[in-house]
Amino acid sequence: MTVLEDVYPSRVGAEPSRHPRVDPVVYAGGPISDRLPDDELRAYERTGYLTTELIQPWEVAALTREVQRLTALPELQGADEVITEPDSDVVRSIFMVHRLSPVFAQLARDRRLLDVARQILGSEVYVHQSRVNLKPGFVGKEFYWHSDFETWHLEDGMPRMRAVSVSVALTDNHAYNGPLMLMPGSHRTYVACVGETPPDHYRQSLRKQEYGVPDEHSLSELAREGGIVAPTGPAGSAVFFDCNTMHGSASNISPEPRTNVFLVYNSIDNTLADPFCGLPPRPEHIATRQEVVPLEPSP
Amino acid sequence: MTVLEDVYPSRVGAEPSRHPRVDPVVYAGGPISDRLPDDELRAYERTGYLTTELIQPWEVAALTREVQRLTALPELQGADEVITEPDSDVVRSIFMVHRLSPVFAQLARDRRLLDVARQILGSEVYVHQSRVNLKPGFVGKEFYWHSDFETWHLEDGMPRMRAVSVSVALTDNHAYNGPLMLMPGSHRTYVACVGETPPDHYRQSLRKQEYGVPDEHSLSELAREGGIVAPTGPAGSAVFFDCNTMHGSASNISPEPRTNVFLVYNSIDNTLADPFCGLPPRPEHIATRQEVVPLEPSP
Repeated sequence: MTVLEDVYPSRVGAEPSRHPRVDPVVYAGGPISDRLPDDELRAYERTGYLTTELIQPWEVAALTREVQRLTALPELQGADEVITEPDSDVVRSIFMVHRLSPVFAQLARDRRLLDVARQILGSEVYVHQSRVNLKPGFVGKEFYWHSDFETWHLEDGMPRMRAVSVSVALTDNHAYNGPLMLMPGSHRTYVACVGETPPDHYRQSLRKQEYGVPDEHSLSELAREGGIVAPTGPAGSAVFFDCNTMHGSASNISPEPRTNVFLVYNSIDNTLADPFCGLPPRPEHIATRQEVVPLEPSP
Repeated sequence: MTVLEDVYPSRVGAEPSRHPRVDPVVYAGGPISDRLPDDELRAYERTGYLTTELIQPWEVAALTREVQRLTALPELQGADEVITEPDSDVVRSIFMVHRLSPVFAQLARDRRLLDVARQILGSEVYVHQSRVNLKPGFVGKEFYWHSDFETWHLEDGMPRMRAVSVSVALTDNHAYNGPLMLMPGSHRTYVACVGETPPDHYRQSLRKQEYGVPDEHSLSELAREGGIVAPTGPAGSAVFFDCNTMHGSASNISPEPRTNVFLVYNSIDNTLADPFCGLPPRPEHIATRQEVVPLEPSP
């Protein structure tokens, strides 16, 4: 495997630090140039996220049925792909749903998602990670603030910032059921965290994050500069966001679950190297390393 | 002390249950009849809460300075009135601020608050409980759903539903910093909880609630019937709500604290009896039992 220069070091210093992003947000030259109108593309470049009403109610219903089917599948009980809440056996996430399920495979190749990713990243793309987050009612715990890229870079060896995530809501997102919160503009700053990464960190971190956690001063500065948004919207709405946009969500004590499908598109020119934290790579169901196949749009 | 009939039993059955409220929400015949216009009073009666912009920015600033003064007071370090977060020494609440501080004593007697309470409760009133909730940024944990009355009835011996709380925001309430959430209409139903109350429960329950917790089925039904609201507004805005309105708040991972002053007005005709859970009463700084003095409006 090629040894790459680490342009985004983290978890090495005794003090946290902030650094300007050295990569573009929107890349030119890809196969798609016109899925998003120019003003939306520029807004995405500036803020690091984009909200849209993406899929229809009948599609939400079909995806929800598929989540229920997967959750109940005997062969997935206790599987690595299935993550439970910290304090209970309630399912919190199912990973790599685009491989486990033809329905989610189809969604990943849907032009309404795929072409946005191809346009932003300026290349063909593949799925770096996919998952369903169930965030059940009453007991759904918070996800603390994080940049996905920091983790993907350190623990998966993603070389550069050239990935975009999309979160598709399968339930209504209200202010009260733990909606996704983002810091607009934060994608332009890389927050290097303190501390080292312990081996097999991922098993715990998917349930409750303890390493690679941004410091409070950096978070305060990012929030002061760009504020915080918590987009709400009906089931079927979606948020596209840059791999380095700082985001999180509060706990969900409401009776209503907050279920979403989360797909990460990575540029085919940004495939994984060795993890930059020096540890062995995380398994394939967390980060696609072997099965890198450019996605063909579904017909 | 008089032995009263327990019209709202709880924590005695093996199964939770819901019961219609047997008390009025708005009482007639008090010293004040015209602070709230009739339509607002009727809306309060129907929904169990009322939002309003209550105090001016300079008043917010003065109250905030007073909170800072109290938090730093050497004689309050480790005092019973001061409650810290479950996982840290960060101050979460300061109790009985209207006795600790002349500034908050003045607020409790302010006609903009006091006369609303006197009008709703149809009598003279006194402060059953007061506190400042600091809900710091980043680490502020959730308050799970609860009816205050269930606790005050069981653990303090408040006989009937004839109390109104007001939460005055000292910081802006956003969707993202753990705002107060309420279930409109829930005040008309009494949710009897399961389980017994252990001795000295209050020491732990003020940090993290484990007994007197409403069951998920009852909460789902109440939310289905009336929905959930999470009022937002600038510092200085306030929410009045009935003692039996189901409410809670999610965690606050944002950098912004959510600080509010919480005052509970109880009718002078509804003073405390023996606790209905059979245990000794909680101390005076949690529930006023000795110093029952009808509040005089400040000039």
